[in-house]
Amino acid sequence: MDFKEIAQRAGKLAQPYCIRDGDRFRLKDYDPDDTLDLDPRDKPRAKQMLAAGVEALAALQERLYAQDRWAVLLVFQAMDAAGKDSAIKHVMSGVNPQGCQVHSFKAPSAEELDHDFLWRCATRLPERGRIGIFNRSYYEEVLIVRVHPELLDRQNLPPGVNRKNIWKERYEDIRGFERYLSRNGVLIRKFFLHVSRQEQRRRFLRRLNDPEKQWKFAAADLREAERWDEYMRAYEDMIAATATEHAPWYVVPADHKWFTRLVVSSAIVESLCALDLRFPKLSDEQRAEIAAARTELDA
Amino acid sequence: MDFKEIAQRAGKLAQPYCIRDGDRFRLKDYDPDDTLDLDPRDKPRAKQMLAAGVEALAALQERLYAQDRWAVLLVFQAMDAAGKDSAIKHVMSGVNPQGCQVHSFKAPSAEELDHDFLWRCATRLPERGRIGIFNRSYYEEVLIVRVHPELLDRQNLPPGVNRKNIWKERYEDIRGFERYLSRNGVLIRKFFLHVSRQEQRRRFLRRLNDPEKQWKFAAADLREAERWDEYMRAYEDMIAATATEHAPWYVVPADHKWFTRLVVSSAIVESLCALDLRFPKLSDEQRAEIAAARTELDA
Repeated sequence: MDFKEIAQRAGKLAQPYCIRDGDRFRLKDYDPDDTLDLDPRDKPRAKQMLAAGVEALAALQERLYAQDRWAVLLVFQAMDAAGKDSAIKHVMSGVNPQGCQVHSFKAPSAEELDHDFLWRCATRLPERGRIGIFNRSYYEEVLIVRVHPELLDRQNLPPGVNRKNIWKERYEDIRGFERYLSRNGVLIRKFFLHVSRQEQRRRFLRRLNDPEKQWKFAAADLREAERWDEYMRAYEDMIAATATEHAPWYVVPADHKWFTRLVVSSAIVESLCALDLRFPKLSDEQRAEIAAARTELDA
Repeated sequence: MDFKEIAQRAGKLAQPYCIRDGDRFRLKDYDPDDTLDLDPRDKPRAKQMLAAGVEALAALQERLYAQDRWAVLLVFQAMDAAGKDSAIKHVMSGVNPQGCQVHSFKAPSAEELDHDFLWRCATRLPERGRIGIFNRSYYEEVLIVRVHPELLDRQNLPPGVNRKNIWKERYEDIRGFERYLSRNGVLIRKFFLHVSRQEQRRRFLRRLNDPEKQWKFAAADLREAERWDEYMRAYEDMIAATATEHAPWYVVPADHKWFTRLVVSSAIVESLCALDLRFPKLSDEQRAEIAAARTELDA
């Protein structure tokens, strides 16, 4: 495989959506309906491109696992029905599950609330050589908790703790956490699947009408959708405050699922290529051992 | 119990050894043989003072547990034979074990080495309402690992990771970690038990001669003692870089075990008193429920 060429091609699809410095970030500059120069009607081509991405990812992950130095953390955040689950499924399905762990974070348990807010995610960080996927993450702490400050009361913070600057402090703590992780060999890539309100509504309706998808519908999702503008403000602030060189956000257009998957796949492939992953080189000693073993087995 | 008076008395013993700002910290300003104005021969008085501390601690811990808001993290670091184990034993023995967890961190396992260096400690952080004790901790990463840089090679860091500033970065990451924890309701107190080289040698000899203590002796401890000056420099740098208002270091004189215990006990008691811990107040609703239950049981 020519990883250099693969990286170049992947970069073209991923770079337009990559935020490495949040200073001037505005969500309105990103269109959920965007598909770059790809024709939405040319499904076969999109399918073929994704298949190539999945194949490259599988090959890169084998090297990641064998080299056993880097860990990869992929964070997915989005409004309901933006396609997180299906993106994870379609992009990661070619990867050996032994080297890949997905954690879905739901409403925190009583034990989790009894710890600091990063704790439940920190305990599930990927080991070296593995890809860890967070389907939702500690970023919920500055999204749903911000839109519903009553959830903060359930976190049992002691009275002495400062609440006035709590979001600013959480952004800072998250930045520090991610900087620390990247210094210690964790590659971090974060994806916000950016769906439009109209498209979300269409998908909700489709869920209600599809017997195989009805189980995914929750009345609470409609309640959250009503607070759309508040959520968008929270996402915008979050990305502006936590997009960094070593832990960038990708604002992925999510009104077309096939394009969402292509961008996510490309972002991961390009990032892994940049790590220059290789199978471990054998030492002279190992080479001698292998030669000896061969002689023994031959005899 | 008059916690105000208790706090005052404890403060007199603990404050002289408390570093909240490492800027001008020099280890040589602290005497391992120090006992303040207490007479080393007056053992009964020392015993009585420690008993009072243990009693106060038990009462405070009950409130901590009932209030269920703050978590308390106590970190112990020291050279071998400085008395960490015995300080933990004597200071904490009055406390209900349900609200207190001790974790001893030994050489990291293969699984632990496969994670970032804070991971194994982060997963063992105390829950709200509990006291967590780290017997050794993430600070080993800037102590033994600094004195033996070959241990860094075993940590499987990827080639891209910066090693030039690694100690500075680790100090910064630890400061960020502790600031984050304190913002989220974890009270942190750190103890360096400061023993002199002469006293350590005496204790090693006593171990060798005492059949009940011989098991504690390891030849490797002697090897580490030979690198005394390097360790002292690492401790000094570590304290200078990581002593903060919210996570102070106590440099506890450790040539007299009875005094070590008094200072540690006093530091914990004073810190807990400052949290203004209280049993939860009953709401009107709860009061009504209690009245109803009483009537029902009376009938």
